[in-house]
Amino acid sequence: MKILYTNQENFKSEFDKLVNRSDMDMANVMPVVSGIIADIRARGDEALNQQIAKFDRWEVNKNLAITQEQMKEAFDGLSDELKSALKVAYDRIFAYHEKQLEKTWLSFEENGSILGQKITPVDRAGLYIPGGKAAYPSSLLMNAVPAIVAGVKDITVCTPAIEGKVNELLLAALHVLGIKKAYKVGGASAIAAMAYGTKTIAKVDVITGPGNIFVATAKKLVFGDVNIDMIAGPSEIGVIADDSANVHHIAVDLLSQAEHDELASSFLVTPSAKFANDIKDEIYKILPTLSREKIARKSIDDKAAIIVAKDMDEAVELMNELAVEHLEIAVDNSLEFLPRIKHAGAIFLGHYTPEAVGDYLAGPNHTLPTGGSARFFSPLGVNNFIKRSSIISMNKDGLSELSKACMALADAEGLGAHKKSVEVRVK
Amino acid sequence: MKILYTNQENFKSEFDKLVNRSDMDMANVMPVVSGIIADIRARGDEALNQQIAKFDRWEVNKNLAITQEQMKEAFDGLSDELKSALKVAYDRIFAYHEKQLEKTWLSFEENGSILGQKITPVDRAGLYIPGGKAAYPSSLLMNAVPAIVAGVKDITVCTPAIEGKVNELLLAALHVLGIKKAYKVGGASAIAAMAYGTKTIAKVDVITGPGNIFVATAKKLVFGDVNIDMIAGPSEIGVIADDSANVHHIAVDLLSQAEHDELASSFLVTPSAKFANDIKDEIYKILPTLSREKIARKSIDDKAAIIVAKDMDEAVELMNELAVEHLEIAVDNSLEFLPRIKHAGAIFLGHYTPEAVGDYLAGPNHTLPTGGSARFFSPLGVNNFIKRSSIISMNKDGLSELSKACMALADAEGLGAHKKSVEVRVK
Repeated sequence: MKILYTNQENFKSEFDKLVNRSDMDMANVMPVVSGIIADIRARGDEALNQQIAKFDRWEVNKNLAITQEQMKEAFDGLSDELKSALKVAYDRIFAYHEKQLEKTWLSFEENGSILGQKITPVDRAGLYIPGGKAAYPSSLLMNAVPAIVAGVKDITVCTPAIEGKVNELLLAALHVLGIKKAYKVGGASAIAAMAYGTKTIAKVDVITGPGNIFVATAKKLVFGDVNIDMIAGPSEIGVIADDSANVHHIAVDLLSQAEHDELASSFLVTPSAKFANDIKDEIYKILPTLSREKIARKSIDDKAAIIVAKDMDEAVELMNELAVEHLEIAVDNSLEFLPRIKHAGAIFLGHYTPEAVGDYLAGPNHTLPTGGSARFFSPLGVNNFIKRSSIISMNKDGLSELSKACMALADAEGLGAHKKSVEVRVK
Repeated sequence: MKILYTNQENFKSEFDKLVNRSDMDMANVMPVVSGIIADIRARGDEALNQQIAKFDRWEVNKNLAITQEQMKEAFDGLSDELKSALKVAYDRIFAYHEKQLEKTWLSFEENGSILGQKITPVDRAGLYIPGGKAAYPSSLLMNAVPAIVAGVKDITVCTPAIEGKVNELLLAALHVLGIKKAYKVGGASAIAAMAYGTKTIAKVDVITGPGNIFVATAKKLVFGDVNIDMIAGPSEIGVIADDSANVHHIAVDLLSQAEHDELASSFLVTPSAKFANDIKDEIYKILPTLSREKIARKSIDDKAAIIVAKDMDEAVELMNELAVEHLEIAVDNSLEFLPRIKHAGAIFLGHYTPEAVGDYLAGPNHTLPTGGSARFFSPLGVNNFIKRSSIISMNKDGLSELSKACMALADAEGLGAHKKSVEVRVK
């Protein structure tokens, strides 16, 4: 695990490597994924079933859909503790996302003109939830709740079932959410099926959810025919901390990101060289105690970095350049830094807000922009499941007031019928 | 120009063709566009200049940038009428988009926890404005104003200059907007330059703006490395009208869409067979009087359709299925239909709101979803130039209350360090 000092000679070039960490090489998988999409569009369910037999190693035989009974059975089989945990998570995520709901608005002018913006949910949403090793039931909650809050009536969930099996907690979460349409299919096939429809799986309008490079590439290729949330890569955390932070806590936080994935990145920026070195020691001390030690160690060795900054101002500046997915600010006066944080998916303030609480049930979404894309992408939210329509209403007075300017511009652009459509009404 | 009756035998299949009108065949141009992007990434300005020489037929010789003097000169050369029209348009578009500004919010829990959402403008926006035949200065206003309102500090404009020349009104609009960075480059090269940067053109975070199939494909390919607004195709209008509407006015409105582009679509849905036939006659009567007759006639002949519905309820239903870019509701009680309109880019209500007034200066954006994508895309707006960051702040009490549920879920997902990061803080 490397420690960089901002005053070292090659800092700029080393830091640039961290800034430019996103390296989703879609070009290599593009032809394969294009082929899968074309095949699903051409042959529908038949192609879908073949893909499942090949990748997930089971024969569909009409059992593509997950039944309501399977969901309920899974929920009933949970411990009381997990039942209650799912409910707490659902309620808190719901309450947060309700605050994101935009309202339709109208504004009036004295001459009687009305302008406005109408908010409507999309009719049909498709949620992709990874399965297998990386089956995270929490991702289902985080994708479904904003769609439900937005008012989407028709929600489809797709998740791969390796050898036909679906994670029990995921099934239970489907029950808690009241999902009616869920299918055991994953990868690019699932994205294509939801984007274009097959006999079994109906076409949707928006596809959201995380996935591997094949899923990400498929989402990019179907974008425009449906809307998608974002293109997400490996998870990452950035921590700004000073000597007021607890070394053990911060070391665990960095490891909690590293345990996700060998490609996950963990960054610490601190003004304290002592804190930097203590964290490094602590991380290697904790590593052997982790259930996912192997993954976490590789991520820490290859992808993590500690940066010792001149002061907190420089630390904030560097973190804005990194534009990380999860940002912890573990200092005493953390709220004071909020105005200066420009780019981050989610911001965790203070000494008692570990990133993990945001993964499950603080309330905000855990589907967040990665790889520096927090510069321009937002967390998944209600916004992904609604769309806006502009509203314009004028009477003859309102149109007349604007007619001269409007006709001048139409004229200048050489659009005669545009001009005429105003002229005939006000003459 | 065909007239369809909803009770005719083959109506469903004929109507489905209209619903599935979007046919952006990007597969054919994808290899060419990928090549251009790779070339710009590898060779920067050198590749840019070669592309310009080839497609726009002029030698750059360091004159890629449009100067502030050129902008001011163009503005000074405008008629007073056009100067004033630009100003009216700018002010009204600005006032509308200001109403779209979202605010950062925080919410508090009794135990001291804080949740919230921070709104930050993107640092750098890139606006693509078509040139040549389809140079619409109004598009520059419609792309730049929401970026300015959002608070974007660094705005880059790219527009192709055929034989080195840029439309005077476009130059004048650059002056009105106070744009500092504008370059004479178009097509996929411009999109690649803004997405990845060259020596002359700096990298941006978001790219918006209309363009041909090469521009649309380039935007799709760079999506993820930057954000983009949407993938837009040919323009279109849908009109719902009954016998209360003026035949001449509505015929002109349908033609105002048709004159844009041979591929533009104009749809009328009406419960009145008489109105339907009158409109058809009127359109062919007006056509020879239009400056852009040839384009409008081809669009009307190939792409337009009139549908006679059973009643207004059916008309609204059909229009929701068409999910058009511009929707006029030309009936006496137009506002009453607003709740039932689900899918449309912009809604124009009543007898005195021709679509053209929205193109220039009513206030709402004229960059709108096409080809049925109003089902899931929204008008361009302030939203395209900001991003959200979630905020979570807890103290020991707040975290403790959630710790049991959080640790149970982390446990169930097999993420030990996640669990530990909560455990070590609350024990």
